[in-house]
Amino acid sequence: MEMHIALLPGDGIGPEVIAQAVKVVNAVGQKFGHTITFKEGLVGACAIDATGDPYPDATHEICAGSDAVLFGAIGDPKYDNDPKAKVRPEQGLLRMRQKLGLFANVRPTFTFPSLVHKSPLKLDRVDGVDLVFFRELTGGVYFGEPRGRNEQGTKAFDTNVYSKEEIVRLARMGFEAAQKRRKLLTCVDKANVMATSRLWRETVQELAPEYPDVKVEYEFVDAVAMRLIQWPKAYDVLITENLFGDILTDEASVISGSMGLMPSASLGSKVKLFEPIHGSYPQAAGKDIANPLGTVLSAAMMFDYAFGLAEEAKLISDVVNLSLAEGVVTEDIAEGGKAYKTSEVGDWLAAKIL
Amino acid sequence: MEMHIALLPGDGIGPEVIAQAVKVVNAVGQKFGHTITFKEGLVGACAIDATGDPYPDATHEICAGSDAVLFGAIGDPKYDNDPKAKVRPEQGLLRMRQKLGLFANVRPTFTFPSLVHKSPLKLDRVDGVDLVFFRELTGGVYFGEPRGRNEQGTKAFDTNVYSKEEIVRLARMGFEAAQKRRKLLTCVDKANVMATSRLWRETVQELAPEYPDVKVEYEFVDAVAMRLIQWPKAYDVLITENLFGDILTDEASVISGSMGLMPSASLGSKVKLFEPIHGSYPQAAGKDIANPLGTVLSAAMMFDYAFGLAEEAKLISDVVNLSLAEGVVTEDIAEGGKAYKTSEVGDWLAAKIL
Ligand SMILES: CC(C)[C@H](C(=O)O)[C@@H](O)C(=O)O
Ligand SMILES: CC(C)[C@H](C(=O)O)[C@@H](O)C(=O)O
Repeated sequence: MEMHIALLPGDGIGPEVIAQAVKVVNAVGQKFGHTITFKEGLVGACAIDATGDPYPDATHEICAGSDAVLFGAIGDPKYDNDPKAKVRPEQGLLRMRQKLGLFANVRPTFTFPSLVHKSPLKLDRVDGVDLVFFRELTGGVYFGEPRGRNEQGTKAFDTNVYSKEEIVRLARMGFEAAQKRRKLLTCVDKANVMATSRLWRETVQELAPEYPDVKVEYEFVDAVAMRLIQWPKAYDVLITENLFGDILTDEASVISGSMGLMPSASLGSKVKLFEPIHGSYPQAAGKDIANPLGTVLSAAMMFDYAFGLAEEAKLISDVVNLSLAEGVVTEDIAEGGKAYKTSEVGDWLAAKIL
Repeated sequence: MEMHIALLPGDGIGPEVIAQAVKVVNAVGQKFGHTITFKEGLVGACAIDATGDPYPDATHEICAGSDAVLFGAIGDPKYDNDPKAKVRPEQGLLRMRQKLGLFANVRPTFTFPSLVHKSPLKLDRVDGVDLVFFRELTGGVYFGEPRGRNEQGTKAFDTNVYSKEEIVRLARMGFEAAQKRRKLLTCVDKANVMATSRLWRETVQELAPEYPDVKVEYEFVDAVAMRLIQWPKAYDVLITENLFGDILTDEASVISGSMGLMPSASLGSKVKLFEPIHGSYPQAAGKDIANPLGTVLSAAMMFDYAFGLAEEAKLISDVVNLSLAEGVVTEDIAEGGKAYKTSEVGDWLAAKIL
């Protein structure tokens, strides 16, 4: 197969972890006979520094012309805590999501036997957790108008808005994922307060009969925030709007004890994007110590979701598990054992694949 | 002192737990020589059943004419999962908050040595947690206009709106609480996305110099959702808007392992309201098995916050701790020991006070 992949390393440790994913992707390509080409673009703080724009047109063209985007991380401390800054790296992220039409963010949470003891939760609560969020990513309060201030600047407002179609296309992805998994779908909303949430709930109720094999539950966002800690194993597939998804996927990500390893996918009409859920970790940048496994597992999701190549995806996650079992890991999870460099882990994984 | 207290038992186990708080309040009154009168009102599902209105005018008059309101719980399964129901118990709650001007919801999370092992979190993460949320309660997306649907019903929208004054009065409460505690204030927002959040952050930044002894931190809501699980001891006082507060206070409530014991206060211009954070627990209603300690501790907060009677408040929490130490507790926390009835726990606490 021919694959055109856009690489957006971004800021902080982004370039280092992306470099390891490239090694792994190339190894898989070589082994399975795929022709893979990469094009690199700037995004985030480094793009602001170079061009004044966190998501330059040139980067968008590279992404729009690719089959998939591999993304590292963005964010730089110099843009933090400055609510009045005119240009911020996150704006690039939001514009990229919107311009590429990436309306569904897929965020799995699962555990690794060798890392689950690092969870802040007790073992019986978290061991074997396997859930996945489908977060709506291009609607809601993130993009709704009007937003801003009154003339005197003494009042601020935001608009949360959802159309039925936006809900339908996201919900269908959730239903279909549930059909391939444990057949439980949880619709997360605040239908006792918000008009948008009532449209979500109604729309999901209308779709449900088309998926008779899927059990559908409706839960308020505050209840889910509790149950994710109390009994996360109760969940299979969760669907929700943009802002609730932002909060709950981050909450869910820490329960596994291996946030640095969690991958994600953002799906849309044509191009699909894959990125680790961890941040740009500026303190570690350039030191060759960052954990590349979240990015490598995001590349595995890419083979699966963007190219329908499940075997390739499986091989990548198998070698990742092997690296954990054999202790070929970075210092964050080495626990007294030898700590490998970021680049060494990438080399090891690529060699195992070939 | 003369105290006029409105009692709103509400639904489910509400009446049973309120009855125990009344015993305790009366005992404290007798011991310290306070004259206490109670007036009872309907709220929630029981008020809908009786009058068609979840917060009848008669109830509002009782509350508005009192110094403090003791509130049980509301909610009935027959109103759940029906997004189209015309009248819902929650509407009564929201109207009550608004009409009484209860703009600040105070939600502490702390641990009890004898119960902390019930936390879903590992002991080292949670032992000694002591944080308190100040959640804005009468603004934001809960009340913002416009809200609703377009004509065809294919689009729904909500408005989140905050004025500077709404933020200032809530934030000042947080600053003052922090001054009396560990002097750390965390402002929780989503200033990288929302205009309302940017006004929150700006306003808090403007107030901060007036409280030079308080260290102020600004964190995004998604980050707080993570850190509340990873390291809740890092927090002291948190301030936030209505919707974020709804989600995060519920999340915080389960980490202590004793959600059934957590009290809360809602403060406003004149009347103050006190309630346990647990729900109406309909399965247990009428069985004399519900845990009354959350309501009793809410009564303790009442003496403190509504009447400035710290000694009375302290005595109540001391006897609650004694009941835990001596195992005079309901079945939810009896753990193999003898399970006392709801009413027996109330009698025991009142007797200990006298
Ligand atoms: C950086 C920020 C705008 C972004 C969001 O809120 O979507 C981030 O938190 C995320 O979840 O990817
Ligand atoms: C019942 C509901 C409207 C309410 C809220 O969202 O405020 C509840 O969740 C709470 O936190 O008191």
